[in-house]
Amino acid sequence: MRQFSHAGQWWVIPPGPSNSIADVEGVTVGHASLMDGSARTGVTALLPHGGDLFRQRPPAGAAILNGFGKSLGLIQVQELGEIETPILFTNTFSVHACASALIRSAIAANPAIGRRDSTVNPLVFECNDGQINDIQSLAVTEALALEAIGNAASNFAQGTIGAGTGMKTFGMAGGIGSSSRTVLLPGGSAFRLGALVLSNFGQASEFRVFGHRIAPQGIARAMEPDKGSIIVVFATDAPMESRQLTRLAKRAGAALGRLGSHLGHGSGDIALAFSTANCRDMTAKDDVVTASRLPEQHMNAFFHAAVEATEEAVLNALWHATPIEGYSGRKLPILRDLLAADAFFGNPDLAGS
Amino acid sequence: MRQFSHAGQWWVIPPGPSNSIADVEGVTVGHASLMDGSARTGVTALLPHGGDLFRQRPPAGAAILNGFGKSLGLIQVQELGEIETPILFTNTFSVHACASALIRSAIAANPAIGRRDSTVNPLVFECNDGQINDIQSLAVTEALALEAIGNAASNFAQGTIGAGTGMKTFGMAGGIGSSSRTVLLPGGSAFRLGALVLSNFGQASEFRVFGHRIAPQGIARAMEPDKGSIIVVFATDAPMESRQLTRLAKRAGAALGRLGSHLGHGSGDIALAFSTANCRDMTAKDDVVTASRLPEQHMNAFFHAAVEATEEAVLNALWHATPIEGYSGRKLPILRDLLAADAFFGNPDLAGS
Amino acid sequence: MRQFSHAGQWWVIPPGPSNSIADVEGVTVGHASLMDGSARTGVTALLPHGGDLFRQRPPAGAAILNGFGKSLGLIQVQELGEIETPILFTNTFSVHACASALIRSAIAANPAIGRRDSTVNPLVFECNDGQINDIQSLAVTEALALEAIGNAASNFAQGTIGAGTGMKTFGMAGGIGSSSRTVLLPGGSAFRLGALVLSNFGQASEFRVFGHRIAPQGIARAMEPDKGSIIVVFATDAPMESRQLTRLAKRAGAALGRLGSHLGHGSGDIALAFSTANCRDMTAKDDVVTASRLPEQHMNAFFHAAVEATEEAVLNALWHATPIEGYSGRKLPILRDLLAADAFFGNPDLAGS
Amino acid sequence: MRQFSHAGQWWVIPPGPSNSIADVEGVTVGHASLMDGSARTGVTALLPHGGDLFRQRPPAGAAILNGFGKSLGLIQVQELGEIETPILFTNTFSVHACASALIRSAIAANPAIGRRDSTVNPLVFECNDGQINDIQSLAVTEALALEAIGNAASNFAQGTIGAGTGMKTFGMAGGIGSSSRTVLLPGGSAFRLGALVLSNFGQASEFRVFGHRIAPQGIARAMEPDKGSIIVVFATDAPMESRQLTRLAKRAGAALGRLGSHLGHGSGDIALAFSTANCRDMTAKDDVVTASRLPEQHMNAFFHAAVEATEEAVLNALWHATPIEGYSGRKLPILRDLLAADAFFGNPDLAGS
Repeated sequence: MRQFSHAGQWWVIPPGPSNSIADVEGVTVGHASLMDGSARTGVTALLPHGGDLFRQRPPAGAAILNGFGKSLGLIQVQELGEIETPILFTNTFSVHACASALIRSAIAANPAIGRRDSTVNPLVFECNDGQINDIQSLAVTEALALEAIGNAASNFAQGTIGAGTGMKTFGMAGGIGSSSRTVLLPGGSAFRLGALVLSNFGQASEFRVFGHRIAPQGIARAMEPDKGSIIVVFATDAPMESRQLTRLAKRAGAALGRLGSHLGHGSGDIALAFSTANCRDMTAKDDVVTASRLPEQHMNAFFHAAVEATEEAVLNALWHATPIEGYSGRKLPILRDLLAADAFFGNPDLAGS
Repeated sequence: MRQFSHAGQWWVIPPGPSNSIADVEGVTVGHASLMDGSARTGVTALLPHGGDLFRQRPPAGAAILNGFGKSLGLIQVQELGEIETPILFTNTFSVHACASALIRSAIAANPAIGRRDSTVNPLVFECNDGQINDIQSLAVTEALALEAIGNAASNFAQGTIGAGTGMKTFGMAGGIGSSSRTVLLPGGSAFRLGALVLSNFGQASEFRVFGHRIAPQGIARAMEPDKGSIIVVFATDAPMESRQLTRLAKRAGAALGRLGSHLGHGSGDIALAFSTANCRDMTAKDDVVTASRLPEQHMNAFFHAAVEATEEAVLNALWHATPIEGYSGRKLPILRDLLAADAFFGNPDLAGS
Repeated sequence: MRQFSHAGQWWVIPPGPSNSIADVEGVTVGHASLMDGSARTGVTALLPHGGDLFRQRPPAGAAILNGFGKSLGLIQVQELGEIETPILFTNTFSVHACASALIRSAIAANPAIGRRDSTVNPLVFECNDGQINDIQSLAVTEALALEAIGNAASNFAQGTIGAGTGMKTFGMAGGIGSSSRTVLLPGGSAFRLGALVLSNFGQASEFRVFGHRIAPQGIARAMEPDKGSIIVVFATDAPMESRQLTRLAKRAGAALGRLGSHLGHGSGDIALAFSTANCRDMTAKDDVVTASRLPEQHMNAFFHAAVEATEEAVLNALWHATPIEGYSGRKLPILRDLLAADAFFGNPDLAGS
Repeated sequence: MRQFSHAGQWWVIPPGPSNSIADVEGVTVGHASLMDGSARTGVTALLPHGGDLFRQRPPAGAAILNGFGKSLGLIQVQELGEIETPILFTNTFSVHACASALIRSAIAANPAIGRRDSTVNPLVFECNDGQINDIQSLAVTEALALEAIGNAASNFAQGTIGAGTGMKTFGMAGGIGSSSRTVLLPGGSAFRLGALVLSNFGQASEFRVFGHRIAPQGIARAMEPDKGSIIVVFATDAPMESRQLTRLAKRAGAALGRLGSHLGHGSGDIALAFSTANCRDMTAKDDVVTASRLPEQHMNAFFHAAVEATEEAVLNALWHATPIEGYSGRKLPILRDLLAADAFFGNPDLAGS
């Protein structure tokens, strides 16, 4: 289901059947939200496949668009070009509860970790939800992280949920969004590319939808600077090596520009891309293995798809948001209300469906 | 003079008096075009200041947004964080004539180069103008490069001139463009940021002006992929160190996204930023020197300005273009014609002035 | 005190008075060791100065020599070029207890963190001590991290202590080592450069002391691969900017080569450098500030000093080691015993003092 | 043939039959020297295979150990992970004659270059031979570059020849050196790794052979700083992808440390690695191709081999050098004379053979 009917004029690459990252075969997403006392936060888990990720490692690449961020595990991803745990998303100060959960889970499944085998590299992304959530309370627990992993499914909610519960995008509520594209190659092959974002960035007065600047009246603190952070994760079933996945990850920046971001100083803008093809089998002993490869000239179609998917994923995070009131009483407006009041989007042909 | 009257709704940071990179005190630009036989190419020179750049080196930083390019000198800029020659722009296969000209000029002014002193690092950027210019002829000479340097002035032309003569942007004529912004800091200081682009990128069907997609009818080969390259150079008089200038350079990518680029596989998208403050004096012998510094929190205003200035500089390259016929008979349309025919831009309130 | 009398022929730059990183004015180091049940591990804290690091931020740069590691906080150091917490060292799976301790300490001192102010970026380095320590028990607590910070002083122990308790270097016991150099500039200025290592790397059969390969008999598993990791931190009072500090950090690799490392696949080899000059004052509101700067040509003397200091710091980690028995009964030999038995080092002129 | 009989105690991985980079099947090297008037310089060509490199592109990776250098083509190698021309080596100011030769050769063989096809990325490395060669004369011609390519063979000379003619290593004559290693994997596969260096680096007083510091008497200007540059190129027939080749290239730094370098400020230290397996066929149209891959855990053996091969290649550049007198009368000593006079190497068991 496409959420924005205007899309046909703005985006040209077709989405997959669910228009989410789960259109990439095997990828699942789960949430665990924490709305309790002053906590309005949570954890979201993204599983590249259903097996043991420490043993079957998806190739990956990362791009640090603006490194004002505290995400964990990227140095090793950049060196070895692979993922070895589920990918968790949470608030800035809960990275470490999530990391400990990933470490203990990996040890439980692979008792040689840190002894005969190497240690494990937990991968945790974060944004600061401190305007809505009482981030100083470090309320997320290891159990909550495990709950998010346990909830992973191909059908998952978006908006103000999981790690996105207390996030704020262009001054509005909404944190978790997703979308997908189907990329056709000249020889007839079709591959999927999906995006999942944890969105918490943007200056309200700069927000653009399909190139249309929505009047920011009603958005509190419209002139506050572009800070907060956004995490973009791409999944694909195309057989890219890590260098190609790094190239893919970098394209997130062009999409953020279209939405109105200038990659603000205080915004930790980080992207990761992984492929579900050619996982490295850590139990194999072969001197040499065989892998499929995507010739470089085909990357362009995926770059185009990545920009569209990122832009739509952020809009979907906003589209699915429900109103939320922060621990200190601050309320965030939601996009649906704004669109309803906007002359441009009041046109039924353009409104989201 | 602002070229696009729509700008007030799209851009919010005021331009400098000439709305060009020459609004940064001391910066000059010169062109030498070559329209002769099958040649439709040239050289553009950007001088950070009027003195000897080998002795007084502006701090600089670079960002390789997409490294499918043959620009020269960036490795040393990234290591030492400074510029030591004029910056030249030309076509891909004429980098080496330009480099030789820079080397010989530097030796003439500093006879110890390569002997008692270190060698000199020529800085030359390029795009492929091979659809209009007979690039295989390697027609640019060292003399043409020196002519461009000699022509440098604070008042300079834009569009299809100098290195921009045979360049093509979103399927239209136009290569050299510029713009500027005035950045006000909380304490009352005002600094300038200017952009100069050599633009040769973009897929015509993806072109966006102020978020408005212009119908690409009349643009030949509308569906051809996003390839070609764009070079973006920022100048500022704000006292940034090289790490800060590198951060600034990276913001070009967000602007390219707004214009419709997805940082195409075949497009060498490269950005450089330099400051005219705190040049390193190679003749000084002090153990320690004193420098002014811009506190990091003020970078955000410059990031916003850099995105606006890049976007406007590309539009200005198109706005000032004149029709050109390639060596093989190919003709490129120009933006003014397209805007005149477009319903959206037909509105006199929106048309360029 | 110089530990190795052979040094005069091997190293040429003079050490500072204590031959430790504390020779850089204001720098202190503290340990907290945990020898309890199956735990043989700990935390070491390095404080760049005695004030509030969140408010007064030392410029810094980092080099990922081999990114097979799980250290925390480097992405932001590379982007912003500064440190904002004490630097902690521990075992791989205790990074997160240490990080939580740093977060809570910073919030306690600066209640606006994560709310009106940005979040805080904890900096924690790690190596895997899993052959001696029962790393799977995640035994390090936040309290232990705070204890290490509280113990910080200019006089500190080296060898098998703090984070170095269970570490193994070239098959021998020893983890924490330090050294310093005094760098004289042509104009008469003198600056200090100090190194602190958490050493846990190296293949025993490749170990070299002053270019002399010590016979590895007595070293268990001599042929085991070069894995484990080493962290090198440089401090200096020379006024370097972050780009220069990044260059400095990279020199650690040459020293590791001299000791016999080939930067093994499984070794997370990471270096950081910071300056105690020109801390960024987060409470200041100026548009522009003034800073001292080290002209680039003077970097060479610091590069030479950094290589010597790294090599000596690793040897000092081994020299000060005491025998240790692992949680599973494994014993590590110590360098003093090996030197006593070696014909080359049996020479009293060459033996450590 | 192994040149240094001491090697058995210092190096442990066996060389290939010719102990040169040509032990990697298909790799050839050619020289063209220019000793004429004030010129003492030349060009060396390294051909990864005997076919058309623009059509069959070897995977490659590069490491900028110290970016004080003017080498050409690395930005695109880092982005696309491949080589598309012969690799040329020359003096700093002759890069552009060599680049023009590579461009014209590629166009001659592939007339669509820069028109229907993309442009070509010439790969040229340089060091500054200005103490011996009159570098300011820019004496190298395109014809000389083509002559070097034409001379490429599996049997080639080392020392003061080709690009190495006027180069200086640790104060002695010698520029071109090579060596190889045979890497055995657990499953019984054997792969080759070869190194070729253009060596022009090092401070004489810091020179170390097998960890033995040779007294620098007789070496003019012993205390001059570590500057000049070194280029290290690795070839292998192991099926590494570009990320792995980048990791391999980084290991050159450890070898330079063993020889006595501290990666001096003024030394452009750059490494490249390529594989002869899995060349990308630019004429193929497949959506997906199949490739062999080396599992990451096998990289360690190649890292060890790369350090040994680099160290030996530099020593071979010195070992094969013949005396040379510079254009201004300066004479460089040679290593053979120094070894003959040295007490340590006077021992016939240790002398080169």
